[in-house]
Amino acid sequence: MNKHALFLAGALVAAVPGFAVEPAPNGITLPEGYRQWKVLSVHHRSDNNTLRAVLGNDVAQKAARDGKTNPWPDGVVLGKLVWKAVKHDRWETAVEPGAFIHAEFMIKDAAKYASTGGWGYARWLGKEQKPYGADANFVQECLNCHIPVKDRDYVFTHPVQLPGDPER
Amino acid sequence: MNKHALFLAGALVAAVPGFAVEPAPNGITLPEGYRQWKVLSVHHRSDNNTLRAVLGNDVAQKAARDGKTNPWPDGVVLGKLVWKAVKHDRWETAVEPGAFIHAEFMIKDAAKYASTGGWGYARWLGKEQKPYGADANFVQECLNCHIPVKDRDYVFTHPVQLPGDPER
Repeated sequence: MNKHALFLAGALVAAVPGFAVEPAPNGITLPEGYRQWKVLSVHHRSDNNTLRAVLGNDVAQKAARDGKTNPWPDGVVLGKLVWKAVKHDRWETAVEPGAFIHAEFMIKDAAKYASTGGWGYARWLGKEQKPYGADANFVQECLNCHIPVKDRDYVFTHPVQLPGDPER
Repeated sequence: MNKHALFLAGALVAAVPGFAVEPAPNGITLPEGYRQWKVLSVHHRSDNNTLRAVLGNDVAQKAARDGKTNPWPDGVVLGKLVWKAVKHDRWETAVEPGAFIHAEFMIKDAAKYASTGGWGYARWLGKEQKPYGADANFVQECLNCHIPVKDRDYVFTHPVQLPGDPER
């Protein structure tokens, strides 16, 4: 196969839903198996009316249990799933997830991502998982939003308290 | 050991956090390993200002993927983790989980729980996981709240849409 044929084959594969997802413009690929990860927290933002589930891979779950979250250790991946918040049709004072908006991730590798505070950022839009950002500079937008929590290793999420957890 | 000594031993075991949890007044025991379950949905209720993560065991996750949720099949266990919603200290238009309020469960067994719509209900309060209800009649309170969704097999939760899911 020549280069052109390879490119076409790649494009076809990427077009099959659930089969392949294009990497983000900074080269980060969709973390595998994030749907199997456990919950670290949940949020409701009223400025853009979204509900969020924050998930963490096994390294993140262990770090949260051990209270090692400032800084988070290398190997941590945090995933945030974001939905439009809609009024529940049978409980009028509750909101529930409507349309899926995006999945976004923070990948901790202090050396590899030193230029962006030790975290690699990436986001995929919608159920079609379209990579976010016109080029690799999109990470400046991520960073700008996370600067208010620079002193918490750039992470907004406080892992939830559950039975069996030590008090934090 | 006589009966009295056994009772004391049981009370001591129950007093060790994370070691043993008393069953609910209707005899339902805390579902094991619920902390490993995956997210089915997230809710924010403004009437009592709580954030909720709805989790499902493996049977529930498969039923949700297959769209078999009315009725849900036997073997499904749904868990709801509830926290006080508090304003995020670095994002003023967001709420995040504060104190843990309770974990509550619905266990589907159409025959065993026929008298309560096919679901067994139980709730454990706080990080100390104190069983809810003075006696087995507490389930009437659960049922009264779930009657508005009797036509949806008594379940308020619509499993979230994620990439790779079929449209529902």
